[in-house]
Amino acid sequence: MAGNIFGKLFSITTYGESHGIAMGVVIDGCPAGVKIDIKDIQHELRRRRPGQSNIVTQRKEEDNVEIQSGIFKGVTTGTPISLLIRNQDQKSRDYDHIKDKFRPSHADFTYHAKYGIRDYRGGGRSSARETVARVAAGAIAKRLLEEWGISVHAYVNQVGHLTLKRDIRTLGYEHIEQNIVRCPDPELAKEMISFIKEVRKEGDTVGGMISCIVEGVPPGLGEPVFDKLHADLGKAMFSINAVKGVEFGSGFHSITMKGSQHNDQFINRDDKITTTTNHSGGIQGGISNGMPITCNIAFKPVATLMQDQTSLDTGGQEVTVTGKGRHDPCVVPRAVPIVEAMAALVVADHLLRSRSNKVR
Amino acid sequence: MAGNIFGKLFSITTYGESHGIAMGVVIDGCPAGVKIDIKDIQHELRRRRPGQSNIVTQRKEEDNVEIQSGIFKGVTTGTPISLLIRNQDQKSRDYDHIKDKFRPSHADFTYHAKYGIRDYRGGGRSSARETVARVAAGAIAKRLLEEWGISVHAYVNQVGHLTLKRDIRTLGYEHIEQNIVRCPDPELAKEMISFIKEVRKEGDTVGGMISCIVEGVPPGLGEPVFDKLHADLGKAMFSINAVKGVEFGSGFHSITMKGSQHNDQFINRDDKITTTTNHSGGIQGGISNGMPITCNIAFKPVATLMQDQTSLDTGGQEVTVTGKGRHDPCVVPRAVPIVEAMAALVVADHLLRSRSNKVR
Amino acid sequence: MAGNIFGKLFSITTYGESHGIAMGVVIDGCPAGVKIDIKDIQHELRRRRPGQSNIVTQRKEEDNVEIQSGIFKGVTTGTPISLLIRNQDQKSRDYDHIKDKFRPSHADFTYHAKYGIRDYRGGGRSSARETVARVAAGAIAKRLLEEWGISVHAYVNQVGHLTLKRDIRTLGYEHIEQNIVRCPDPELAKEMISFIKEVRKEGDTVGGMISCIVEGVPPGLGEPVFDKLHADLGKAMFSINAVKGVEFGSGFHSITMKGSQHNDQFINRDDKITTTTNHSGGIQGGISNGMPITCNIAFKPVATLMQDQTSLDTGGQEVTVTGKGRHDPCVVPRAVPIVEAMAALVVADHLLRSRSNKVR
Amino acid sequence: MAGNIFGKLFSITTYGESHGIAMGVVIDGCPAGVKIDIKDIQHELRRRRPGQSNIVTQRKEEDNVEIQSGIFKGVTTGTPISLLIRNQDQKSRDYDHIKDKFRPSHADFTYHAKYGIRDYRGGGRSSARETVARVAAGAIAKRLLEEWGISVHAYVNQVGHLTLKRDIRTLGYEHIEQNIVRCPDPELAKEMISFIKEVRKEGDTVGGMISCIVEGVPPGLGEPVFDKLHADLGKAMFSINAVKGVEFGSGFHSITMKGSQHNDQFINRDDKITTTTNHSGGIQGGISNGMPITCNIAFKPVATLMQDQTSLDTGGQEVTVTGKGRHDPCVVPRAVPIVEAMAALVVADHLLRSRSNKVR
Repeated sequence: MAGNIFGKLFSITTYGESHGIAMGVVIDGCPAGVKIDIKDIQHELRRRRPGQSNIVTQRKEEDNVEIQSGIFKGVTTGTPISLLIRNQDQKSRDYDHIKDKFRPSHADFTYHAKYGIRDYRGGGRSSARETVARVAAGAIAKRLLEEWGISVHAYVNQVGHLTLKRDIRTLGYEHIEQNIVRCPDPELAKEMISFIKEVRKEGDTVGGMISCIVEGVPPGLGEPVFDKLHADLGKAMFSINAVKGVEFGSGFHSITMKGSQHNDQFINRDDKITTTTNHSGGIQGGISNGMPITCNIAFKPVATLMQDQTSLDTGGQEVTVTGKGRHDPCVVPRAVPIVEAMAALVVADHLLRSRSNKVR
Repeated sequence: MAGNIFGKLFSITTYGESHGIAMGVVIDGCPAGVKIDIKDIQHELRRRRPGQSNIVTQRKEEDNVEIQSGIFKGVTTGTPISLLIRNQDQKSRDYDHIKDKFRPSHADFTYHAKYGIRDYRGGGRSSARETVARVAAGAIAKRLLEEWGISVHAYVNQVGHLTLKRDIRTLGYEHIEQNIVRCPDPELAKEMISFIKEVRKEGDTVGGMISCIVEGVPPGLGEPVFDKLHADLGKAMFSINAVKGVEFGSGFHSITMKGSQHNDQFINRDDKITTTTNHSGGIQGGISNGMPITCNIAFKPVATLMQDQTSLDTGGQEVTVTGKGRHDPCVVPRAVPIVEAMAALVVADHLLRSRSNKVR
Repeated sequence: MAGNIFGKLFSITTYGESHGIAMGVVIDGCPAGVKIDIKDIQHELRRRRPGQSNIVTQRKEEDNVEIQSGIFKGVTTGTPISLLIRNQDQKSRDYDHIKDKFRPSHADFTYHAKYGIRDYRGGGRSSARETVARVAAGAIAKRLLEEWGISVHAYVNQVGHLTLKRDIRTLGYEHIEQNIVRCPDPELAKEMISFIKEVRKEGDTVGGMISCIVEGVPPGLGEPVFDKLHADLGKAMFSINAVKGVEFGSGFHSITMKGSQHNDQFINRDDKITTTTNHSGGIQGGISNGMPITCNIAFKPVATLMQDQTSLDTGGQEVTVTGKGRHDPCVVPRAVPIVEAMAALVVADHLLRSRSNKVR
Repeated sequence: MAGNIFGKLFSITTYGESHGIAMGVVIDGCPAGVKIDIKDIQHELRRRRPGQSNIVTQRKEEDNVEIQSGIFKGVTTGTPISLLIRNQDQKSRDYDHIKDKFRPSHADFTYHAKYGIRDYRGGGRSSARETVARVAAGAIAKRLLEEWGISVHAYVNQVGHLTLKRDIRTLGYEHIEQNIVRCPDPELAKEMISFIKEVRKEGDTVGGMISCIVEGVPPGLGEPVFDKLHADLGKAMFSINAVKGVEFGSGFHSITMKGSQHNDQFINRDDKITTTTNHSGGIQGGISNGMPITCNIAFKPVATLMQDQTSLDTGGQEVTVTGKGRHDPCVVPRAVPIVEAMAALVVADHLLRSRSNKVR
């Protein structure tokens, strides 16, 4: 398989290039009987949409989804669900000036090396536009998870040096969508927005971090030994454009901890086995333990700058790459729904996989 | 699939429980014509072996590998390679005292929740002993990679608060195996060893970090969009017991960087396209660019303590878990060959997968 | 996976219901550099199209294919190829009269049992209309095979009791498409056509057989032990609607043969190893030996009759199913390109898979 | 994947060569909680064992199975089950006389072409000895199916021209194992045995046919559109050595039938939906309908003859292949448990897969 299929039982295949006719996804393995309203999908696409605010790319895309199969009278039938989002902006630009150039830290050179041919228009298949298909599929996965009482929330907790200090449990999820940077602390959000605008003015970009929490996952999801729940979640996150680091629970901080500090003590709360702390991030031995699954994802600064850069062309000659076009100065505000989608897809897959654990 | 198979084309299936008869692995998809000396496998197993020094577990295992199939007259035949390592220490302990207890931050509770039954002897399938099979398979993958000029090196760069400050390229790989903690800086290694002994004396454990570098990878390995090379490497690393975080290239540090600092400039060096810096960690758009692939992996402190801990039993009643047995106070020295094995397995898989990229 | 994905390296995902918006397929894994003319795809679709002659269903479908991704300037780029065929006839009929009835020997009852819900319009996903997506994908596979000198030909060799007695090598492939039943013997073709018309007049249907020959396959394709070339071809053929039997080479006739008659003798013809006979059907030990791959596929009579039939409804009550609509009295003339498509998809997959057999 | 892994959720990986150290299988995905007695496995292995009667090969193998993992206190734990059968006869013969020769209709030439190297001892990996691992795994699958009330029975219904005329339902399964040829008709069995002995005396071999019936399968197993239940069963059967043809239900006979004869009428029998006839062979639209699944499998005559044959060596020179060794004159008596094992593995896999069909 050439890497465009994801998931074992709840599996998705995405297709489409940034400036082709359409982006799409086929979901194979969604169980029958899930109620789907097209508005659920559209809602998620709007959260990812370009042009949604003045700190993201101004590319013009409505991102209206078309359901082509698999849903009959508002309910999934168990057959493949095909979702299609047409590209509207695909003919508006001339990409001839970069067709033979390798943009720094883009996938131009690596695609060229791999295939010997590439669709150079807007990055082609390597463009983050591909994630629109994931978000559409993730909306279906979220609906399935809802039927099982599982919820997924992500938010921005860092932009450049600006770091969220307050606890999301105190702040509340309801604040995430109340500002354009998707940081649940309203004060910090303002600072982040100003900082992103400043960076953009310099023709530069900056990195950021997203946190993701999955709640309501029953104990027992995740397969030993390779398909540990966080291993599959980790892969999912690393497959998102610009992600350079992922950590679960105590993460990199655990390096300096002692076992006596790190171990999560089991307690019996109202006849339910739970833990007093959650350094494990909801996963022990690769399997969910019923506590919230917590994850941080580091995004590098976007590679497209509004500055001139020296680079090479396909012939190995030095060239100048000029900053043009409409791009995100910081990827994290729009990446929040993408992170949620990938988390939902993985948990949905493992929810189905866990059905085969016992003889009956 | 229940998670015990890893890899698409170079794929491995592992089996065995900590205190069962044997640990084993079947490799399906190793190409014909790779020369294998059993010593190559044994060499890697010795690097992972318990009892190899006084800072690791003193469990007694020779870890001798038996080749059961797939290699004829010292050469792979293209058929499945079965490697078996017998457990020698499996009958020496009584595990009755923990059979109904959930050890904190172990997989006892989650396996119980998942399967309703578990082999409680030494953690059964959830034990890190399973990684012996991965190291054996990784030795075969390394041999295949050698035929293509690809090498894999890992080393310890942090134990608790003790962090490697010097560059591995200055220090040289040859220093890694010259001390029992596998840190290439001899002075720091001594400090790490003292610290680990101190922690052990307290009946406690501590976390650590391993760096891994893969060199000689040709441009073009890795599949868009889900099976990005670092996504598959990330999954591989997260599948190793006790791993809580993974980063590639600039990693979490990239969050605070500007795009103008982070972008790796392409240059033509002797008619070879390369980059001046390597913040990308050798991977751009999920595909190798010919630069060294660099990765950091964070390990939490081992959960087994030589201290009494409060916990629950399968009936939800409070119990005391007493520290017993022989365990690693810090996992990273023995995890170095495991990290290398997982990296080698992923790169070998993608080496084969890349053969289908072009029509001829 | 829920069964809508086929192939390991050259893999396809199909979607769509008979009376939904569109049928489609996404090809993941077609190598870069294959020249594709949309006419190549359209040509195959026309061979499968309803309404192509007066012995097939008169459902009105133009079956025009739209290429949505993966092909840039007439060449495959290595990224997923999405092909879409809109349904034109989807709103023209009322299916309310069968929505609660189980048509005999259709998939109505089994889908109902499996999913608890079904798209009853024209059989929904279980309709043979799904094969339009396979034929489109098969056209791409055929183009890839052509680059390697491999060709696929199928033809009708039996309709009811009317059996082809003459050898296809004498008759020539060029006669296949010269009549509407796709039998290379012009005289027999006429008889078959008359017979099908007669059967239709009775409101009945009849079975048939198709032969398929793949030529130019190099020795070495097919993977031991489960993914034998003919095992994967066999699965492919059985996945086509109405297929009840498949045989390779000597097939069922081999039961009564002696080994001394059946063995194919190797001879050296112009420094090429070949065999004097081909009872093996081009495959030995599951691997191609360079001889033509030969296969026969048995199709049962179509289940939809223009007669009243007694059956049950979803409540288990006896009902009458009335013959209505436009259906094929015999499936084989239109199944010829479907058989070719499935054969091409399997051989393309194994062509790519064979690239990993040797170390270099 | 290189073809040694079979099944999606209940998946097996086999390894081992005919004259290597051992044959083995790892089952990944057997649910926890299945009671396994080693005698269940041994019973099936004895049915397949060489030397079991005077009409099969006299190779000496005890075929004792060792359970290496996955079963704890007589119950499956959900972790991989490793089963190993040592080869006892592996050193007893000298294979130097055929190491450079291509035996007619064996896999010698095709393995050579594929891998450039092969283990020539007794056919290596291409030997039917590999099926011992399948039978061991099949015994576990049968136990799982028993928990769901599903049974699998196979028997010989043809040897050469000698065909079973009587109905198995009249004869009864209990007669199958009462004779060494495994034909439920005692009179015909005697004729078959005489005929096989006669053929052996001539140094020749002969083909045969096996029928397989799976009973108790609930409606709803099998996945549209590619992983139809009979498509996966078909692949499973074609993966068995020497199989040249497979048919389900009416099979090849359906070609000459009319739809009005072939359609299976639904009736309500004691509030259970069933059919009056079973031309569908228990599968409609690729999904089980609750009726018995019926299948016929054609085996060609064994390629190893006790006669001299002309052939080629690896250099393309003409050589004589002399008949030597101990081989089956007719494969079907020993293939009965192999057919059952493959059927059980497929149905077990689809039993697990069907658990994801509905939202709850």
